[in-house]
Amino acid sequence: MPLTNKQKIVNDPIYGFITIPNSLIYDLIQHPYFQRLRRISQMGLSYLVYPGAHHTRFHHALGAMHMMQKAIEVLRFKEVEISKEEENALLIAILLHDIGHGPFSHAMEHSIVEVHHEEISLLFMNKLNQEFDGKLSLAIKIFKGEYHRKFMLQLISSQLDMDRMDYLKRDSFYSGVAEGNINSDRLIQMMNVVDDVLVMEEKGIYSIEKFLTSRRLMYWQAYLHKTSLVAELILTKTLKRAKELLNKGIEIECSKPFHYFMSNKVTSADFNDDLLNTFSQLDDFDIISALKSWQFHNDYILSSLSKMIINRDLLKIKLDSEKFPKELTDTYIQKISEKWNVSKQDAEFFVFKGKIKNQAYNKDAEPIRILKKDRTIEDVVEASDQLNLKALSKPVIKYYICYPKQLVEN
Amino acid sequence: MPLTNKQKIVNDPIYGFITIPNSLIYDLIQHPYFQRLRRISQMGLSYLVYPGAHHTRFHHALGAMHMMQKAIEVLRFKEVEISKEEENALLIAILLHDIGHGPFSHAMEHSIVEVHHEEISLLFMNKLNQEFDGKLSLAIKIFKGEYHRKFMLQLISSQLDMDRMDYLKRDSFYSGVAEGNINSDRLIQMMNVVDDVLVMEEKGIYSIEKFLTSRRLMYWQAYLHKTSLVAELILTKTLKRAKELLNKGIEIECSKPFHYFMSNKVTSADFNDDLLNTFSQLDDFDIISALKSWQFHNDYILSSLSKMIINRDLLKIKLDSEKFPKELTDTYIQKISEKWNVSKQDAEFFVFKGKIKNQAYNKDAEPIRILKKDRTIEDVVEASDQLNLKALSKPVIKYYICYPKQLVEN
Amino acid sequence: MPLTNKQKIVNDPIYGFITIPNSLIYDLIQHPYFQRLRRISQMGLSYLVYPGAHHTRFHHALGAMHMMQKAIEVLRFKEVEISKEEENALLIAILLHDIGHGPFSHAMEHSIVEVHHEEISLLFMNKLNQEFDGKLSLAIKIFKGEYHRKFMLQLISSQLDMDRMDYLKRDSFYSGVAEGNINSDRLIQMMNVVDDVLVMEEKGIYSIEKFLTSRRLMYWQAYLHKTSLVAELILTKTLKRAKELLNKGIEIECSKPFHYFMSNKVTSADFNDDLLNTFSQLDDFDIISALKSWQFHNDYILSSLSKMIINRDLLKIKLDSEKFPKELTDTYIQKISEKWNVSKQDAEFFVFKGKIKNQAYNKDAEPIRILKKDRTIEDVVEASDQLNLKALSKPVIKYYICYPKQLVEN
Amino acid sequence: MPLTNKQKIVNDPIYGFITIPNSLIYDLIQHPYFQRLRRISQMGLSYLVYPGAHHTRFHHALGAMHMMQKAIEVLRFKEVEISKEEENALLIAILLHDIGHGPFSHAMEHSIVEVHHEEISLLFMNKLNQEFDGKLSLAIKIFKGEYHRKFMLQLISSQLDMDRMDYLKRDSFYSGVAEGNINSDRLIQMMNVVDDVLVMEEKGIYSIEKFLTSRRLMYWQAYLHKTSLVAELILTKTLKRAKELLNKGIEIECSKPFHYFMSNKVTSADFNDDLLNTFSQLDDFDIISALKSWQFHNDYILSSLSKMIINRDLLKIKLDSEKFPKELTDTYIQKISEKWNVSKQDAEFFVFKGKIKNQAYNKDAEPIRILKKDRTIEDVVEASDQLNLKALSKPVIKYYICYPKQLVEN
Repeated sequence: MPLTNKQKIVNDPIYGFITIPNSLIYDLIQHPYFQRLRRISQMGLSYLVYPGAHHTRFHHALGAMHMMQKAIEVLRFKEVEISKEEENALLIAILLHDIGHGPFSHAMEHSIVEVHHEEISLLFMNKLNQEFDGKLSLAIKIFKGEYHRKFMLQLISSQLDMDRMDYLKRDSFYSGVAEGNINSDRLIQMMNVVDDVLVMEEKGIYSIEKFLTSRRLMYWQAYLHKTSLVAELILTKTLKRAKELLNKGIEIECSKPFHYFMSNKVTSADFNDDLLNTFSQLDDFDIISALKSWQFHNDYILSSLSKMIINRDLLKIKLDSEKFPKELTDTYIQKISEKWNVSKQDAEFFVFKGKIKNQAYNKDAEPIRILKKDRTIEDVVEASDQLNLKALSKPVIKYYICYPKQLVEN
Repeated sequence: MPLTNKQKIVNDPIYGFITIPNSLIYDLIQHPYFQRLRRISQMGLSYLVYPGAHHTRFHHALGAMHMMQKAIEVLRFKEVEISKEEENALLIAILLHDIGHGPFSHAMEHSIVEVHHEEISLLFMNKLNQEFDGKLSLAIKIFKGEYHRKFMLQLISSQLDMDRMDYLKRDSFYSGVAEGNINSDRLIQMMNVVDDVLVMEEKGIYSIEKFLTSRRLMYWQAYLHKTSLVAELILTKTLKRAKELLNKGIEIECSKPFHYFMSNKVTSADFNDDLLNTFSQLDDFDIISALKSWQFHNDYILSSLSKMIINRDLLKIKLDSEKFPKELTDTYIQKISEKWNVSKQDAEFFVFKGKIKNQAYNKDAEPIRILKKDRTIEDVVEASDQLNLKALSKPVIKYYICYPKQLVEN
Repeated sequence: MPLTNKQKIVNDPIYGFITIPNSLIYDLIQHPYFQRLRRISQMGLSYLVYPGAHHTRFHHALGAMHMMQKAIEVLRFKEVEISKEEENALLIAILLHDIGHGPFSHAMEHSIVEVHHEEISLLFMNKLNQEFDGKLSLAIKIFKGEYHRKFMLQLISSQLDMDRMDYLKRDSFYSGVAEGNINSDRLIQMMNVVDDVLVMEEKGIYSIEKFLTSRRLMYWQAYLHKTSLVAELILTKTLKRAKELLNKGIEIECSKPFHYFMSNKVTSADFNDDLLNTFSQLDDFDIISALKSWQFHNDYILSSLSKMIINRDLLKIKLDSEKFPKELTDTYIQKISEKWNVSKQDAEFFVFKGKIKNQAYNKDAEPIRILKKDRTIEDVVEASDQLNLKALSKPVIKYYICYPKQLVEN
Repeated sequence: MPLTNKQKIVNDPIYGFITIPNSLIYDLIQHPYFQRLRRISQMGLSYLVYPGAHHTRFHHALGAMHMMQKAIEVLRFKEVEISKEEENALLIAILLHDIGHGPFSHAMEHSIVEVHHEEISLLFMNKLNQEFDGKLSLAIKIFKGEYHRKFMLQLISSQLDMDRMDYLKRDSFYSGVAEGNINSDRLIQMMNVVDDVLVMEEKGIYSIEKFLTSRRLMYWQAYLHKTSLVAELILTKTLKRAKELLNKGIEIECSKPFHYFMSNKVTSADFNDDLLNTFSQLDDFDIISALKSWQFHNDYILSSLSKMIINRDLLKIKLDSEKFPKELTDTYIQKISEKWNVSKQDAEFFVFKGKIKNQAYNKDAEPIRILKKDRTIEDVVEASDQLNLKALSKPVIKYYICYPKQLVEN
């Protein structure tokens, strides 16, 4: 009958319940560094397309931990030995794998800090390891790829890891892009370990194919949906403008931590405890609140871009499989510069082009391995009975151009 | 084949797709007043209990409109005449019924403005009616209860309206409180109209019973869950403190619109166009950003309360069916005042009590009417074959007390 | 990596996967006695109302076993000790709890054999225990209520057992009566054991209320739906007629085992191994195939009744909270007897009345016990903050009358 | 308020409700020819793998009609004109498209009658057209491909028709093979008509890709799952044996209609009204009841094969991408013939091989057409940005061999 007073169970619409297995993990979740993830949206600005997509990195991290619990259960059922200590390390590592994400990180990884989020995750883990008397050491070792049992890292970070398992399912659930829903239960049931390497049993091959197709679909239908894309590009431009103004000594209203990162170029080397603390105060609320305020700034460019996002009145965007010619942007920039009476350089905040790329399966990265009935192991691309897995490993590139819709409407 | 360039369809994980039926409604949705609802959470601080509960009033309003479309379809199938113009008015009225909500409105209806959100909704509708050349007139007439076909108001606001139909379903979906899920499809299928009054066909009676039980459950399990409750109470206390400080001339950091409402007592009579505009700039981001900043304010009370919410490190709360004795709060206040070296008055920010009440079905309000097989009409409470509907109409009252957990832990 | 060649996992649309934990249970499932349950529909003739309701007792038994696995996991997490042997016994007992059901057992429990299905379940278990060298002994002991740890029986058979947990969920899922869906995950999470007695934690009280409302709804909306009811009543009449004909020496076409039970009155005392074997050959296919053949029998009554079910062209049925007067049936019988030129006695195959009863919670049976926060234990009816649990324990009685629709149509 | 007394709404766990739009369609559904479909399983013997897969052709036909209603609604929203009469014809045609299916038709199309089920569907439609005074004429015209508006046939029968739309979704739902779930809502939303030809809008292209992957997966994971496959092959062998015995004058027990088809070779030319009636009495119950009885026949082969299916104690089956060598079957046959003391010819009932083939998209059949943003139309394979649709149109062939498991176990 006993059950300690620390809350042990969290409701989840996808899995029913997520169990928090022990008080160390409970305490990590309670830590302000982790609670911060409640204020960071998992899908950035995608809610402008899919109004349900407001779920957070907090929720995803719990979900990924739940997937890890299932995976451990399945592997133990198949007589893969995983010690109590290893189990705990796996749960901690997956729980904290994304703790280094900043707000809107896809859009802003280079606008705010010049550091990859995984690197910051590691900084947070090390900091927490101090606070928790070294209890995270094994988790960190696994996360850094320094542990000899390779499959443990693969469960955390590979082409079929618990991270993807949860985020595809969760993003599909909350956005309502039903086609993105994967059968994570089945995928996990098909996992096994041979010589400390993660493999998938052969009868799971169609589920993997389906998983990769779902991932491909989620990229084009959600993560790279043209409306999300243009919104994130506008956000990047807005930050660029904000920095320019600060550089010129023009003041802009925003929270202190955000102001710090807008005024200072921060690289890996700069990250000491203080900076990490400042970073830990930054979340979606700083950015959106700033945009709300900047709508009324008297810099025309800053206010225009901010309004676009706040009122979802975005630039027009076109996608194509061919590059857009430089002449086209030149013409648009010329027109805008005349029409709005701004310099050509400033017009480039409203007219720009670029490319996006996605690859459902990366043949050059560590493969998804299939354990065949004859006990040999093969890359999933070879093991499939059809060419579409090969096809899925070809990268797809699309080109975009963005410009004010007034350009075409009149 | 034709389809105009205005986006006509929105993904919804609950209904699959929500269709935007015409360009007037499309333009209303695009209006900044309505887009603001994207930044107001439907369930306030409930995400501190149910981490998935981040859906917004924007999404709910679209969902309620979708339910209305279904209801109109069903009623027309049953040969209830609803003209094209009436249809449009119904859709607009339900779409805008909640547009007057401020951030965290359950907690803050009296902290920010002394005006009921329905009154503000009406102000917004009137303003939009001007902008849209009177095209909202019939919607407003229905919303104000001035239209002769009474069932139309009942579809928008009654004990079984499209608002509840959507929010129970949606809150259940996003929070994962599965028991709250109602069968809105079936409930709508059971609707009919007799003499311009909304009725439910008799065979729907068990679904109504289930609907009321679900609503009761959602109240105690989610809306009045003790953790949501204490968080909202702390939020109210925080705003109270912020106002006190401002009154004393001590500055606090927050957005301009929020500052306005913290510094001025606003009532119905004050609402002109300007004030409405200021109100329209206020959303969850202003509040949460302020709390984030206030964590570092040097007023101990303001910073303590703010941190509680931001880090989800809340006061302890107890619920009971009996009132808590005054002596108990007195003792707690005494202890806190000594321990933290604050005045008794200030200690009351941390120790307080009160009561909450819920009633699944209100017998004194307009009833849910049952159309019996013999064509007579009866209040659902009478028509049921059992006493539990009667039971559900008894209000339930619970008493709470909140205090710092340090009081009991040491 | 190892996994034996016995299939260990079964797909289930409700739970994702059901794991078969060991080879003893695997072998029990493979046994023809258990495979027979694949041919017995869980909801009898309800598919005439809900066309999806074709799921079987086989599937339900697996589902109930899965629920039991979850319950054991939760209880162990709460430090209730359950040995490996007890675990296995619990799984076997729940798996086999319904193995004694005959086809359409609600309609036919008294038409085919005069023995309660639980008694036959026990006969099957004993037989299997012989075949499996006594490995079912503990399961049987628990099932018979002879084991000292009382909660184990309660998990198998009580007002909140794994049987109900699965069948409500499953019947709701397959029929599409969404309101019947219960939150079994949450209910199980709330279970605990005190002094070897099953209790529910207090915070689960709304879920229990919801569970009882769902059960009540499933009774009136599905199990006792008037169309299911009349179909089952007609089936009972058909068997009655078939027996009469056999008694008169008139032959009827049907399978051998079915013929045996139609020609012999079987009671408890008759059940030896041979009879059990004959019984084990009986399933829905015998009954429906017989009806199909009897459509062309030259006994007017037998053929008419059989056609009604096969073509879903049923008698008219009316339900009321008041008894139907004897005069009404008399008049109908008179009319039918004239119109169809049959004796009054034969007319009674087409005109009859009776009553049905349901009680969502039985206060006289073993209660659902609530473990309150102060560690006392209370009947759920007392512990609830409202009267509707009391209301739910009042039995509801309804009266029905059935007659050919031609009586009213002309 | 009016609503006639014919039941107008059917519960469906997938779509919520299916509306029966008028009394002609209601009467068709009530017809014994259509009611028969309640007794024909949609997925044949797949329930031996997926215990939930007991849904029927009756339910599927209603579901496909529901999909058609949605498609008509979407097309009309896009200003495709569809008259009331055409609408009705479309609904009738899709409702009856599968009415000619016999029991276990994938396994038995050549064992029972030498006629394709679509041909028999047409015979039923013509018969019903007589009974219903020519009201099915337009439906029949469309079904036969004789109507000038080609898209109407495409909605009923093409590579993306309402039939597939429902059966993939339904088979996935009831079996629990979650990966087979397609987003039919979205697919239908993407439909349009140009020059009376069905097209899909370009932004639906990923959903089509997902649809084809789902279909491919359902083939290998469900329809051609090795256990379903071997069960269906055994069933075919059983019927073959039954016919041989009848030819030799040895009697076997089974229902009259089944006996007729076992004793007579029936081709297209034989189908008169009487034969159609006999065929209409045949369903799954005849087959399974016969197998149950044949378990006790004294022909060893007939009884062995029958028991295999009834007790799910099947032959061993192996699949491979290479042909199995003739020597292997020869050896197995030799062994069986010795071990069981049967002729080699009889041993072939237990040892046999063959191949199966599936193609997710058939490039030689009528294509799925994409309506591109520039208003040109292209085959989906060309329009996709990647090669995997091309890959999906390559047929996959697998070879199988079946033999008694005793052969390998000892």
